[in-house]
Amino acid sequence: MAEVRALLFDVFGTLVDWRTAIAREARALLGARGVAVDWEAFADAWRDQYQPAMEEIRSGRVPFSRLDALHRRNLDIVLDRFELNHIDEPTRTDLNFAWHRLDAWPDVALGLERLRVRFRVAPCSNGNISLMVDLARHNGFLWDAILGAEVARDYKPRPIVYLSSAAAFDCAPEQTMMVAAHSSDLAAAAQAGLRTAFVARPDERGPGRGERRAAVPVDLQVENLLELADRLDCP
Amino acid sequence: MAEVRALLFDVFGTLVDWRTAIAREARALLGARGVAVDWEAFADAWRDQYQPAMEEIRSGRVPFSRLDALHRRNLDIVLDRFELNHIDEPTRTDLNFAWHRLDAWPDVALGLERLRVRFRVAPCSNGNISLMVDLARHNGFLWDAILGAEVARDYKPRPIVYLSSAAAFDCAPEQTMMVAAHSSDLAAAAQAGLRTAFVARPDERGPGRGERRAAVPVDLQVENLLELADRLDCP
Repeated sequence: MAEVRALLFDVFGTLVDWRTAIAREARALLGARGVAVDWEAFADAWRDQYQPAMEEIRSGRVPFSRLDALHRRNLDIVLDRFELNHIDEPTRTDLNFAWHRLDAWPDVALGLERLRVRFRVAPCSNGNISLMVDLARHNGFLWDAILGAEVARDYKPRPIVYLSSAAAFDCAPEQTMMVAAHSSDLAAAAQAGLRTAFVARPDERGPGRGERRAAVPVDLQVENLLELADRLDCP
Repeated sequence: MAEVRALLFDVFGTLVDWRTAIAREARALLGARGVAVDWEAFADAWRDQYQPAMEEIRSGRVPFSRLDALHRRNLDIVLDRFELNHIDEPTRTDLNFAWHRLDAWPDVALGLERLRVRFRVAPCSNGNISLMVDLARHNGFLWDAILGAEVARDYKPRPIVYLSSAAAFDCAPEQTMMVAAHSSDLAAAAQAGLRTAFVARPDERGPGRGERRAAVPVDLQVENLLELADRLDCP
């Protein structure tokens, strides 16, 4: 790995635990309005709309729009499905911003701090810039730049998102490592020529409902970012 | 200024002293090859090619390319003008990266550190992302994001550069303040609806050859970033 100069990070699921915070915020905001549902199922249902919404853009059927806008349209779909059409506009807006307030897995802040001593670091997420900025402020991440979908104006796993992120750091694909907890993300990054590191997040979708091992060939496979820092010789 | 949430910074001249470092690096790199010229005049000549190169892109005559590429073409023009056509390719490449190694004015690192406690902060420069990242690493700046020309795919003073930078932070133009040492930059930002702060850099182009006072109406006028932090109530 001597020539790797930059690390790109997937964010939802890899660095932050979206499911716990979305369920908690939905419970707080909607529960206060007398709603009682399975909040984890609500979080999962909202997340399940994520790929179909992006696919509309990746396929070229609709022009690029930021993830905040997709999350908002998806929320309306999910509220309808849970028969919660009475939820008012300000509450929907507030709940949509729950994605800006997700908590990091416990190894992330310290792991990133160690990794950034030796490497350029940036998120390469499908989240928009302001969402990444808010997550960084909320969790104490220090990024060199915010890269990914909004800068590339397309969504992962389209190759342009990985390639434009590497290029923004003046790095060739092989000088850039994608770090993610999802085999599909890493397969696409590897296909674009990047190095890959798999981070196990076995509880991403609830206990035991995340990926424990990469389902595709990767350059590194680690349990968390502290092990990644060890493996990449970051003191 | 109660509603300002984000500060956008011009970089060349406002945060970093391009002339001293470019003259010094040209002297070191070309002087080692037996060249002796007026190094400050060489730096000025290189910088003088900056606006005409960007104007080709702003006018739509040529597609967007990053400032590193424009700097490199401008360097070839200036070397030709100084009758230095014998300078080899690796030296030209190395010298072009002198723009990534500029030193900040002495108030900037501490000023930014204070300002970022209360505000989202980003460069809104015509420099490309990797150039901004290298200057940040070199000078210890901590940015929330790298915004500006490469993200907007156009060059200041085109309004899209200011407006897309504000939008990336989820800010309306009037919630965003452009900070610069150049009246022309601030006039364009104000025209786009942003607040403006003028920072005096009277020695930018050599002793007494920079702007001491704004030549256009601005919201704030300060001597340096420490005074800006005071005026914006940043402890």
